[in-house]
Amino acid sequence: MKRQLEFSFSDTGAFVAPRECEEIRVLTEAAFDTLTKRTGAGSDYTGWIDWPVDYDKEEFERILAAAERIKSDSEVLVVIGIGGSYLGARAAIEFLRHGFYNNVPAAIRKTPEIYYAGNNISGRYLAELLDVIGERDFSVNVISKSGTTTEPAIAFRVLRDRLEEKYGKAAAAKRIYATTDANKGALKTVADTEGYETFTVPDDVGGRYSVLTAVGLLPIAVSGADVRALVEGAANMRETLLKKDFDKNIAMQYAAVRNILYRKGYNTEIMVNYEPGLHYFNEWWKQLYGESEGKDQKGIFPAAVDFSTDLHSMGQFIQDGYRNLFETVVLVDESTRNMTVPTAADDSDNLNYLAGRTMDAVNKCAAEAVVAAHVDGGVPNMKVCMPAQDEYSLGQAFYFFEFACGISGYLNGVNPFNQEGVEDYKRNMFALLGKPGYEERRAELEKRCDRKK
Amino acid sequence: MKRQLEFSFSDTGAFVAPRECEEIRVLTEAAFDTLTKRTGAGSDYTGWIDWPVDYDKEEFERILAAAERIKSDSEVLVVIGIGGSYLGARAAIEFLRHGFYNNVPAAIRKTPEIYYAGNNISGRYLAELLDVIGERDFSVNVISKSGTTTEPAIAFRVLRDRLEEKYGKAAAAKRIYATTDANKGALKTVADTEGYETFTVPDDVGGRYSVLTAVGLLPIAVSGADVRALVEGAANMRETLLKKDFDKNIAMQYAAVRNILYRKGYNTEIMVNYEPGLHYFNEWWKQLYGESEGKDQKGIFPAAVDFSTDLHSMGQFIQDGYRNLFETVVLVDESTRNMTVPTAADDSDNLNYLAGRTMDAVNKCAAEAVVAAHVDGGVPNMKVCMPAQDEYSLGQAFYFFEFACGISGYLNGVNPFNQEGVEDYKRNMFALLGKPGYEERRAELEKRCDRKK
Repeated sequence: MKRQLEFSFSDTGAFVAPRECEEIRVLTEAAFDTLTKRTGAGSDYTGWIDWPVDYDKEEFERILAAAERIKSDSEVLVVIGIGGSYLGARAAIEFLRHGFYNNVPAAIRKTPEIYYAGNNISGRYLAELLDVIGERDFSVNVISKSGTTTEPAIAFRVLRDRLEEKYGKAAAAKRIYATTDANKGALKTVADTEGYETFTVPDDVGGRYSVLTAVGLLPIAVSGADVRALVEGAANMRETLLKKDFDKNIAMQYAAVRNILYRKGYNTEIMVNYEPGLHYFNEWWKQLYGESEGKDQKGIFPAAVDFSTDLHSMGQFIQDGYRNLFETVVLVDESTRNMTVPTAADDSDNLNYLAGRTMDAVNKCAAEAVVAAHVDGGVPNMKVCMPAQDEYSLGQAFYFFEFACGISGYLNGVNPFNQEGVEDYKRNMFALLGKPGYEERRAELEKRCDRKK
Repeated sequence: MKRQLEFSFSDTGAFVAPRECEEIRVLTEAAFDTLTKRTGAGSDYTGWIDWPVDYDKEEFERILAAAERIKSDSEVLVVIGIGGSYLGARAAIEFLRHGFYNNVPAAIRKTPEIYYAGNNISGRYLAELLDVIGERDFSVNVISKSGTTTEPAIAFRVLRDRLEEKYGKAAAAKRIYATTDANKGALKTVADTEGYETFTVPDDVGGRYSVLTAVGLLPIAVSGADVRALVEGAANMRETLLKKDFDKNIAMQYAAVRNILYRKGYNTEIMVNYEPGLHYFNEWWKQLYGESEGKDQKGIFPAAVDFSTDLHSMGQFIQDGYRNLFETVVLVDESTRNMTVPTAADDSDNLNYLAGRTMDAVNKCAAEAVVAAHVDGGVPNMKVCMPAQDEYSLGQAFYFFEFACGISGYLNGVNPFNQEGVEDYKRNMFALLGKPGYEERRAELEKRCDRKK
């Protein structure tokens, strides 16, 4: 039997009394019901709950086949997407595959280099990405529900032109994979017209919950990771978490404790890891929690650090700065590769007391030491332990944090599945760019600008 | 005449009255005096103030010569250091050089690949780094004041062994460059014994203020960036900022406004950029401000985002989440490379209204739009505008933020130059690792652990 992801909040003991957990239990159960019975705000976007068992099996096979085709005909895959349309895939690839994926020789990597585009508007970035692709064979996976989001749409125009110049229109179409709405929208229309293979962004799964759909799975499969095991890990966690038992349900516990802390003024949560490969998992988590909970002028601010790296930058503040912080530490139990601290004849660096021990053992000691120090400094700590740096564990972790996020949002009285605030800057941007239909807003902004002068 | 870095706080107008700036002026002037007359706490560590003009000219030439040697005999440089011993160099290299520095063909890069080690304790990371180096020629720049910091010391043991296996002890010594204390310490001792070329970490410059010393300059020079222009930019900014005139001194203004905001409850500052090349500049800034100000249970929490990327993850929270945030946006006026939005015959993505415009122009519109939206949402905004994506501008920016940090720390009544909180976890770590001398702490931690069980 595969091992389970574990969660512990014992290091919040100095900050949260057992009584408090009892008192929030009934609310947590209500939030659980709201989520699982789909009776709450945003319940149209809870398709991710059953996705790990109800996913489209035919499409799954097509994803695997497309990945094989890309692996066989491309040295480079460019993933075009922003926010939930690339963060999950990137988190998975960086955790599961080689830590210097694009830098190791092809003989070690064995799969195409993978780069991300359409997640910013920097002309320099895109020009430099074209340098990297050079004259090599490449394919594009463009991921956009609508096909009209500014960043990916610009990048797709540029990269499609490049593909068509290089291969001609018909052959280029065979190198473009569109993950988009099943039936409508700009990208779906052009994909059907041009004959791109398409995959579906389901209607009832928001971007930040979409990593286990085609959105995440195609790039992850191209990287050579085992997407079947990833989905199985999520399905396993789903089965565990659908049982409404506060004493055993770790998603309910995580949601409850962070809400208790929030109500005491701990309004910044720092996601902590000790493996560089988890950096983009943190970024994925920040979107998941920030977009789900940061609304109506409330919510826990999601921050992230990579330890021990950032102990030498953010460590001072976390230890002894303004006290509104708590930490959630993600550890990985089994390390897949390791090194031993060598002995030095002179011991000039006083490190021989570690000689012969694995770096992973030292790293885990550091993690334990830091939790104790930060708790002493007034920072409540929670811990998530992933069994291994593998697909099954990551599937569990994705699902755990998604499910807990739904409960947590409802516990704080918000709709965890919308993100209306994201539209505000877009209206201004379209106005300033002179997009037809935004003339009125443009006039307002210009008037304000004049006032400042 | 070179252009100046600009600063504006006009978008804090809805949050900070002009009267408030007047009222904090005298305090800001006192903090300015404390810093520049070196009368405050930590004044032994203000060597960075005059460094851009008083640096060691002989050493500077040796740095350039060493960089040329590394460029001529190495395909890879590994920079071993943690915190202030690598963040400045990394920030500079990622901003000044190709955005995919290690991924573009050597013919475009023209200089060695550069990787960072000793900034974590992951055995997997180090093993994977050795995959990347492979059989290629490489050199090491090990940066550590003491030579006994755990992370870089472990990495140095491993990489020195690798160098000595590959080249033999004598030839390996010619490929090791030690940046360390001028006279004492473990690394200085071993460097002198083995004959490594050494560079100095000055006694009166703390790690987070050290980017313009050999700590930063050697790796930056190896990357092919113009370190002379970098230092000149800093010297130029120094001259500007040493004039105590609140109405013109932008470092005093930045320090004052962020302290005014802090005292109203805005206790999280988000550093924002619109160029991916600034990502590590943000990380450098987080260490500078977090370590300098986060102490005595106070301080502004430093966070960072890359826009427009993170508008699709953190944007919702910043627009409409818990209201304790303010933003400082770093823009780059002149883009060094650009692309034009192509026309599409079908205009299926409705983007033809942008066709023919540069991405940089669109990006700057986005920045303006976001500032307006976030201010409307209750987030005070400040702006720093760097003239160009070049060395001189970056030198200005480094010095601006350092100088403002000194003033800001004194304005909040803390010593901006110590970091005692960083030691707390180390004591625990040494205890748990069984380092001689930490037996008592170990017993305490074990007792605590038993209690939890």
